[in-house]
Amino acid sequence: MDERIREHAEVLVEWSARVDPGDDVVLSVGEGAHDLAVAVAERLGDRGANVVTTYSSSEVTRAYLRAHEGGFESDPDYERALYERADVVLALKGTNNTAGAADVPADRRQAYSRARQGIREARLDTDWVSTQHPTRAMAQQAGMSYEAYREFVYDATLRDWASLADEMARLKDVFDHGNEVRIVRESPNATTDLSMSIEGRTAVNSAASVAYDSHNLPSGEVFTAPHATEGEVTFDVPMTVNGSQVRDVRLVFEDGVVTDYEAARGESVIGDVLDTDDGAKRLGELGVGMNRGIDRITDNILFDEKMGGTVHLALGRAYDACLPEGEAGNDSAVHVDLITDLRENGRLLVDDEPVLVNGKFRWEDGFEA
Amino acid sequence: MDERIREHAEVLVEWSARVDPGDDVVLSVGEGAHDLAVAVAERLGDRGANVVTTYSSSEVTRAYLRAHEGGFESDPDYERALYERADVVLALKGTNNTAGAADVPADRRQAYSRARQGIREARLDTDWVSTQHPTRAMAQQAGMSYEAYREFVYDATLRDWASLADEMARLKDVFDHGNEVRIVRESPNATTDLSMSIEGRTAVNSAASVAYDSHNLPSGEVFTAPHATEGEVTFDVPMTVNGSQVRDVRLVFEDGVVTDYEAARGESVIGDVLDTDDGAKRLGELGVGMNRGIDRITDNILFDEKMGGTVHLALGRAYDACLPEGEAGNDSAVHVDLITDLRENGRLLVDDEPVLVNGKFRWEDGFEA
Repeated sequence: MDERIREHAEVLVEWSARVDPGDDVVLSVGEGAHDLAVAVAERLGDRGANVVTTYSSSEVTRAYLRAHEGGFESDPDYERALYERADVVLALKGTNNTAGAADVPADRRQAYSRARQGIREARLDTDWVSTQHPTRAMAQQAGMSYEAYREFVYDATLRDWASLADEMARLKDVFDHGNEVRIVRESPNATTDLSMSIEGRTAVNSAASVAYDSHNLPSGEVFTAPHATEGEVTFDVPMTVNGSQVRDVRLVFEDGVVTDYEAARGESVIGDVLDTDDGAKRLGELGVGMNRGIDRITDNILFDEKMGGTVHLALGRAYDACLPEGEAGNDSAVHVDLITDLRENGRLLVDDEPVLVNGKFRWEDGFEA
Repeated sequence: MDERIREHAEVLVEWSARVDPGDDVVLSVGEGAHDLAVAVAERLGDRGANVVTTYSSSEVTRAYLRAHEGGFESDPDYERALYERADVVLALKGTNNTAGAADVPADRRQAYSRARQGIREARLDTDWVSTQHPTRAMAQQAGMSYEAYREFVYDATLRDWASLADEMARLKDVFDHGNEVRIVRESPNATTDLSMSIEGRTAVNSAASVAYDSHNLPSGEVFTAPHATEGEVTFDVPMTVNGSQVRDVRLVFEDGVVTDYEAARGESVIGDVLDTDDGAKRLGELGVGMNRGIDRITDNILFDEKMGGTVHLALGRAYDACLPEGEAGNDSAVHVDLITDLRENGRLLVDDEPVLVNGKFRWEDGFEA
């Protein structure tokens, strides 16, 4: 076995999920994640945890959903009982075909998802962590060879997380004490100059561990919930939104609300998102990527939004963790991340003080305010 | 998809497990059984059943068991809750390496198994069915090409089960009304002449369906629980017992108990079995294979013992279903099947009337008493 797979399992079980002896663990194995499952099972045995292994396959799900007439039973008791009693859920993603369920009608998928809300909430109540085993299908989606993609995934995943958590704590501290964030970028074709308030909001240090309320491995971002957004922003990083490609999305905000938009590609997709509900026209998240192991876009939001030196903004739902106790943030049925790259000619300022300039943070070598 | 895989799924869900709309189904997917899982999921969706998909892999189990220090928690509540609430468990076996867990210490495996007795009983309380997806590893164990092995498995599995159940009902009727079974075979090197009582015992028509108390697909045997065995028998079909090959096992019975034994190969393995406990020296089962789709030995007891025209006898534990209500049959920690081929120079008689001669039953063309 590739030693990196064992290291991946170690980070997942020890750093991310903090599995204790006697923990009841559900190990969800993606159809292409067998090798990682073997390594994780070894680590769980070593920890003295219990394990139930489930199987996740887009082909199996597709076959079931297409054949079903659509009246799904709400939260079947046997499955709910499993997750309600579990301490930890480890989801090892790793598909063999990213389009494996592309021909399931959207309403069938949505009906299934709605019927499973209780099960989903029971899963989210555990110390759950989702991670990605590199498969050939994921390499293909990234436009990369399998070997290069594995290098990429392990560079992103096998970090010194404790050290990164310390660095991210600096940015969290700046955000927690700041009132206004401004993002500026000069480029020949598009201007970005956006300001937003973060007053009274709490940033999350997303350090890929349940101990930090962070449930994805890899992670590596600091995010908060902005409001009162003003100005314009262009997202120059290509993305897939709801299955469609979008490029160079430009949004104009007035008084916190999107008043104008355009895109070089996928403009109607963005229009549909904005039309979902009132909350979809406001920002729910400002996130700053700080994972230096991620140095390229691979069309996988789990990785892309964590890329060191990029900033992402999400239209729609805000995370409760960023809000004062009892206060509701922006509410919406959607949460759509869009990314802008500040590594060239870009700046992020907090209360007019430069924090991130041309991809370098204030505390890094090479920072030039 | 090979259309036979869809037919296999249909037989499993409709004939074997009798899945009803709304049933809570646990679908256990062997590491090499993905394609069958897709077909079964489609059929379960069509039936309107609920499904939880689990993953079964000898490599995952091996890694967990070897790393664990061995003090296993008894019946973890979350897993027990899943099976206690399930209606149906479908186990799709299909390993990629029949020796995949060969280096797990036996005591570790036994300790794990002992700790899971409650979970095992909960599974056995469901309408469970175990079946076999043909893999290259299974083909290799059978000494067959992958294509020929698939032919073999589907010939054995895709039967007209209702018709076979009717035929097997005839033999069950003979056994249920009979008192003494005698098995005779002349061969140059070994004599078989064994008699046993089946008085008061009930035969099981094992027709690969929960409706017949039969939980393996394929099946195709009629079995009962004999006693008062007398005489000698040679098992000429090569077998693997507890991981070791045995050949030409010869047993001598007096007053129901084995008094002498020898084997051309694996004699010590048989000795160990006989030494397990008192019940291991007595027969727990007499079974008659009636599946004409199985025409060769593939070193897989699930198939071998069902081969039409063969008879198997098991040392050890008897099945309750064969015994009068409330009566205990032969009890033992083991149940080891051994097979003798009656297709040449062999006869099975019930109360001195020939029932099976040279592999043909009384009601078949070509039967010659």
